Amino acid sequence: MKEKVVLAYSGGLDTTAIIPWLKENYDYEVICCCVDCGQEEELDGLEERAKLSGASKLYIEDITDEFCDDYIVPCVQAGAVYENKYLLGTSMARPGIAKKLVEIARKEGATAICHGATGKGNDQIRFELGIKALAPDLKIIAAWRQDAWTMQSREEEIEYCKAHGIDLPFSADSSYSRDRNLWHISHEGLELEDPAVEPNYDHVLVLGVTPEKAPEEGEYVTMTFEAGVPKTVNGKEMKVSDIIRELNRLGGKHGIGIIDIVENRVVGMKSRGVYETPGGTILMEAHQQLEELVLDRATMEVKKDMGNKMAQICYEGKWFTPLREAVQAFVESTQKYVTGEVKFKLYKGNIIKAGTTSPHTLYSESLASFTTGELYDHHDAEGFITLFGLPLKVRAMKMAEAEKNN
Amino acid sequence: MKEKVVLAYSGGLDTTAIIPWLKENYDYEVICCCVDCGQEEELDGLEERAKLSGASKLYIEDITDEFCDDYIVPCVQAGAVYENKYLLGTSMARPGIAKKLVEIARKEGATAICHGATGKGNDQIRFELGIKALAPDLKIIAAWRQDAWTMQSREEEIEYCKAHGIDLPFSADSSYSRDRNLWHISHEGLELEDPAVEPNYDHVLVLGVTPEKAPEEGEYVTMTFEAGVPKTVNGKEMKVSDIIRELNRLGGKHGIGIIDIVENRVVGMKSRGVYETPGGTILMEAHQQLEELVLDRATMEVKKDMGNKMAQICYEGKWFTPLREAVQAFVESTQKYVTGEVKFKLYKGNIIKAGTTSPHTLYSESLASFTTGELYDHHDAEGFITLFGLPLKVRAMKMAEAEKNN
Amino acid sequence: MKEKVVLAYSGGLDTTAIIPWLKENYDYEVICCCVDCGQEEELDGLEERAKLSGASKLYIEDITDEFCDDYIVPCVQAGAVYENKYLLGTSMARPGIAKKLVEIARKEGATAICHGATGKGNDQIRFELGIKALAPDLKIIAAWRQDAWTMQSREEEIEYCKAHGIDLPFSADSSYSRDRNLWHISHEGLELEDPAVEPNYDHVLVLGVTPEKAPEEGEYVTMTFEAGVPKTVNGKEMKVSDIIRELNRLGGKHGIGIIDIVENRVVGMKSRGVYETPGGTILMEAHQQLEELVLDRATMEVKKDMGNKMAQICYEGKWFTPLREAVQAFVESTQKYVTGEVKFKLYKGNIIKAGTTSPHTLYSESLASFTTGELYDHHDAEGFITLFGLPLKVRAMKMAEAEKNN
Amino acid sequence: MKEKVVLAYSGGLDTTAIIPWLKENYDYEVICCCVDCGQEEELDGLEERAKLSGASKLYIEDITDEFCDDYIVPCVQAGAVYENKYLLGTSMARPGIAKKLVEIARKEGATAICHGATGKGNDQIRFELGIKALAPDLKIIAAWRQDAWTMQSREEEIEYCKAHGIDLPFSADSSYSRDRNLWHISHEGLELEDPAVEPNYDHVLVLGVTPEKAPEEGEYVTMTFEAGVPKTVNGKEMKVSDIIRELNRLGGKHGIGIIDIVENRVVGMKSRGVYETPGGTILMEAHQQLEELVLDRATMEVKKDMGNKMAQICYEGKWFTPLREAVQAFVESTQKYVTGEVKFKLYKGNIIKAGTTSPHTLYSESLASFTTGELYDHHDAEGFITLFGLPLKVRAMKMAEAEKNN
Repeated sequence: MKEKVVLAYSGGLDTTAIIPWLKENYDYEVICCCVDCGQEEELDGLEERAKLSGASKLYIEDITDEFCDDYIVPCVQAGAVYENKYLLGTSMARPGIAKKLVEIARKEGATAICHGATGKGNDQIRFELGIKALAPDLKIIAAWRQDAWTMQSREEEIEYCKAHGIDLPFSADSSYSRDRNLWHISHEGLELEDPAVEPNYDHVLVLGVTPEKAPEEGEYVTMTFEAGVPKTVNGKEMKVSDIIRELNRLGGKHGIGIIDIVENRVVGMKSRGVYETPGGTILMEAHQQLEELVLDRATMEVKKDMGNKMAQICYEGKWFTPLREAVQAFVESTQKYVTGEVKFKLYKGNIIKAGTTSPHTLYSESLASFTTGELYDHHDAEGFITLFGLPLKVRAMKMAEAEKNN
Repeated sequence: MKEKVVLAYSGGLDTTAIIPWLKENYDYEVICCCVDCGQEEELDGLEERAKLSGASKLYIEDITDEFCDDYIVPCVQAGAVYENKYLLGTSMARPGIAKKLVEIARKEGATAICHGATGKGNDQIRFELGIKALAPDLKIIAAWRQDAWTMQSREEEIEYCKAHGIDLPFSADSSYSRDRNLWHISHEGLELEDPAVEPNYDHVLVLGVTPEKAPEEGEYVTMTFEAGVPKTVNGKEMKVSDIIRELNRLGGKHGIGIIDIVENRVVGMKSRGVYETPGGTILMEAHQQLEELVLDRATMEVKKDMGNKMAQICYEGKWFTPLREAVQAFVESTQKYVTGEVKFKLYKGNIIKAGTTSPHTLYSESLASFTTGELYDHHDAEGFITLFGLPLKVRAMKMAEAEKNN
Repeated sequence: MKEKVVLAYSGGLDTTAIIPWLKENYDYEVICCCVDCGQEEELDGLEERAKLSGASKLYIEDITDEFCDDYIVPCVQAGAVYENKYLLGTSMARPGIAKKLVEIARKEGATAICHGATGKGNDQIRFELGIKALAPDLKIIAAWRQDAWTMQSREEEIEYCKAHGIDLPFSADSSYSRDRNLWHISHEGLELEDPAVEPNYDHVLVLGVTPEKAPEEGEYVTMTFEAGVPKTVNGKEMKVSDIIRELNRLGGKHGIGIIDIVENRVVGMKSRGVYETPGGTILMEAHQQLEELVLDRATMEVKKDMGNKMAQICYEGKWFTPLREAVQAFVESTQKYVTGEVKFKLYKGNIIKAGTTSPHTLYSESLASFTTGELYDHHDAEGFITLFGLPLKVRAMKMAEAEKNN
Repeated sequence: MKEKVVLAYSGGLDTTAIIPWLKENYDYEVICCCVDCGQEEELDGLEERAKLSGASKLYIEDITDEFCDDYIVPCVQAGAVYENKYLLGTSMARPGIAKKLVEIARKEGATAICHGATGKGNDQIRFELGIKALAPDLKIIAAWRQDAWTMQSREEEIEYCKAHGIDLPFSADSSYSRDRNLWHISHEGLELEDPAVEPNYDHVLVLGVTPEKAPEEGEYVTMTFEAGVPKTVNGKEMKVSDIIRELNRLGGKHGIGIIDIVENRVVGMKSRGVYETPGGTILMEAHQQLEELVLDRATMEVKKDMGNKMAQICYEGKWFTPLREAVQAFVESTQKYVTGEVKFKLYKGNIIKAGTTSPHTLYSESLASFTTGELYDHHDAEGFITLFGLPLKVRAMKMAEAEKNN
């Protein structure tokens, strides 16, 4: 009996060509596994295609809700943003996919997992670190990094497929290199490879429009959160994945969440991409809007560091690590009271706050206003400043003294 | 001969009323000092007003350029933003004002400095910590925190002035509480005191318009920086203050930089305000756009922490401290190669990147693209991932082993 | 009926004098509460003394085990050390005492809590922040900060007591100012007030001896931990408080844990003290010794930051805050596998490691040694270094290029 | 004409065997370069040995003073310690050596640099990252990582040398694997490979004795610093390298600075080693003793983070990076006033403080003592605590309110 390999399969040309390649070079039985994180791709006919290409089986696994609950929500709560801009859409999906691949490998008794991520990107790292952490005994085959992988273009892949009896209607022309899931879509390549060039948004955008093409009329949205988890949009209770779908619709319509960034990859070089994260951008902003009312200053400050850590960890593919667990434990502890309602207006790329309330608000109107009361006496400020400024004053006096002694 | 006090004087009702109050309660000779940080107020007639109110002298000191070079530029370079939103407009101005007050006090041989900041705000702290650090021997009088200060409203202040022979045309109705300088204007009070309420932007805004009222047509802007310092806007070389003026004009026109925030004050309570920082928002964004191309990943990450520190330090009024100096030294060291040109489009509240170039770019198109070359071999990724993921794999193996032994 | 006040009572002269003072100045019924954190003081006769001094009731509350489990263990796990040296002995005890005082106040229906901490120290802050966080409605009376408190010396306190009919045998001579509990004893005052002067250890030390006076013979100790909690010493299972007692005995004997420090108080000045923490020093060192084997590099690094945060929070008296809870959640998450045995030798002030084992060790002898194997191929290092060093190399090349273009 | 390679040469068996190997496998002219960082090795006869082994030239370069001034002093000032214990002795030396190798390569017009660091250690990374950063065009040959390198033991190396006509008196028996320079000596291998085993210190130690074997009598030492740089020991002015030599003598004698650690290597595994850093341990402790008196609280806290960063950067071989420069700029800025005298006693492994003075001390005896004065009024503490604790109190009140509303 042949050993089995589980192949992360998308149905596209790249991963389809891997099927005959794996059989030819390793003599494996190939089990395809297509993990759905909400990429909205046509999955009809996928099984036929996989089998036609030589796979013995195809799993189609929808992990969209798990993706939302176990990866997106913790990152939203952490406020995890990579290099000021990137909302980690691809990064957050990879560990969930790795986990599912391992699960199928265990179920099938496979001894290897194969993926088709490029040798210059971050995704190879995220897939492989996920697999290593969950199943250190499994062999990992990164098809594109192998010497035996000789195809250098779509044309060659199509040729290779044909030579192995696979005649499928793949187009040879290439567009942007894209990755899509429920949270976002990323775009790389073509004119984007030159940071001096403005993106051709008419070609680039998939999930929404530019602010210029968004409606002339803004639109108010209301959201509620419970303990840091989004619960309703415009009064309608929905599970998180449906909330993101609805926010994607709203954000895409109003030109929200388009990012153009030169980022630093884990493998050591800079790359340039455009990300669309319409719903995600709204969700993170709304969550932060509520936190403003509920978190105290010291917690906010340290949580900002933790959010940065979360972003680094997630970006580097180190999801299944003790550090990610610990950072998440920190973040979760801060979310207990992040409950309330936020209102904002979407208008041509802008998310404009329009009011926030919470049963756990730390804002006190009487305290904030200019009158004094029981809680606050102007004399207190006197004492506070005296001690708060004491180190500065003592230092200045000591310096003056030292100077005099010289 | 009477002792002298230097009064931080704006010409408004509040600080005007302090003049007779100081004379009555302390028997000082009052030297007024109006420090101009670009607040665009009418200064004609100010001297007459001060003297009419009982001051013996009025200094009008324009520190706008110093404000730009010594406070704004370091904060822009640091990327200093308080609680994700606030660009520190008021915070950055206070130490410069304190420094000037001390300078005048020394020149005049004064023994005290008086200010009219409220007892619940941050500004009292910033003024006083500045003075303590620069002149620990000077007495500080925070007029509003004194028991002898009994006026509770504008009406009472007007009454008090009249009773002391000062009959000036101050209006009794109050609007938002505002602070303005070259960098920004802040608004507090009225409907803003309830975070549940949307700001009435038609009343609030002073420096620009909302995105809704901005032109239908976007506008491209080009800026250059040298070693982290802005040098030109649209090809025209200008000093920093003029650059900010020009960016204010552009940003105000296009609805840029309007912030609605619930923030945590140093004195321990939350407050809600609206800030307009049209030019500042553009400047910080443009600087960051350039840094993306020039800073390596590790530097960016630690610099983010340093920027947060800078924001905290500045917000808390701890400008004249060894820690601020050290943080600034860190930041300056990172700016050596932040030289280049950024292009972006302003459109209804959005700053949309439109291309970045730098002689010191770390972006390499050949490296970023999917081909391999001398610098990068796919086999390298193999080794990299093996070692990068080694701790995860060893841990997983050890855990499996430990489980087996149980 | 009179209102009641709960007084934090030690039985010493200072807190005894407060009883008549409270009755005289506030007309309260005084409930004394002596909270025992393992200070090893004579408590016999305390009730009589309190009542004789005018208190209506005395509670003696032993919270030693709670002190260990809820305050010491989390800080040990965090590795919380203030300013490189101070093991937070007093800081950790204060919130527990405040909690107990609030509990008694609630039980008695008291409306106020009174303490005798000085107006220049950290303890007033820790007591009061604890009370504010747990019972914001209770009035706090810091006796020594009141104008009505006029006694300036022990003599005056004795005089005052006598004048109020309290004739107890207090001695008028003062020694070091000390605070003791199960974890440590602190010493301030006398010759220690001059940092230029070496402490007179013969007078200072209470819990142990100097290294010079420790035995000539070292002593091996073995400890085990489970999930970060100490379980046994030299094979004997004990509760944490008994473990600390045993380690105090051992550490005191061998001259361990004597610290001489100039530290920065919260209230803005430096102070100098000597701390003895014999058992605590051993416990923290032993815990760290085990963590070395069990924690991965990334977790260790971030945990170090969290330990520093924990130390700051605890030192500042901000125990009952969301931030402390979140930091503790982080730390707890890292302790799951901190299980194992550590051996060390105590010898004249030194704790010398003598072997560590853990079922969850991440150390792999085969991996660490110089041979290569399945897990590690020298070629992997090649690829790793190429990518790990890629940003440096690209930068150097770009710089050379830029220079050439100039 | 042959291309030239510069070989990092120690004169030991390992690097001697590389000479014929390089000539055989690459057809290079081999230039040997022995960089002296104070390793106290016999350099007489080294040139003869190198030439006899086939090298065309030998450079002996003493960089000990540069090592002290450019690497050690910045790390001491930063308080850089890796994983709580390791004083970075080897890590700090590597970049200096790399720099010198590049310098010789440039001088000789060489096209490659070769080193003999193992494929599992940190040093290969430190050498290579140094070279990449300073001379990205140079080829790097890590002899031991090459397939052509087939020798697996000292015996085989000796055999190989003999076969190539090199008959030198190398002993075949191996001891600990060691690295020595002015700052420290490290020991790995033999019984140390099992963390459960106590080090055999009688065999291990080279620079000093254990505390047990140290003199019964302690010894007082006085040191002065100027702006963070050590200037004198016991009143004698010396350059830094001589200060470290003298402190090594003193520390070695008194059993100071022996560390037994399980550390995390960059390449992803844990390793166990013993380090002797007698003088370095004293120097760092003395520097910190002075900083206690001179640095304010906020600076100390952030500097601790920066010290950790410095340690990570240095350990990872990323010395020649913008981040290291920026961190060093931060640290240098804090050292301006680290001037003064420290006294301490060395006794059997202990460094016991015995008094500290500085013209820039921030310690004020009058402020620290229990009396109040001009600078500090007990009422100030009242106000300070009210505002310092305000967020906790408001939160507690709001929570109580929210509960009531439920």
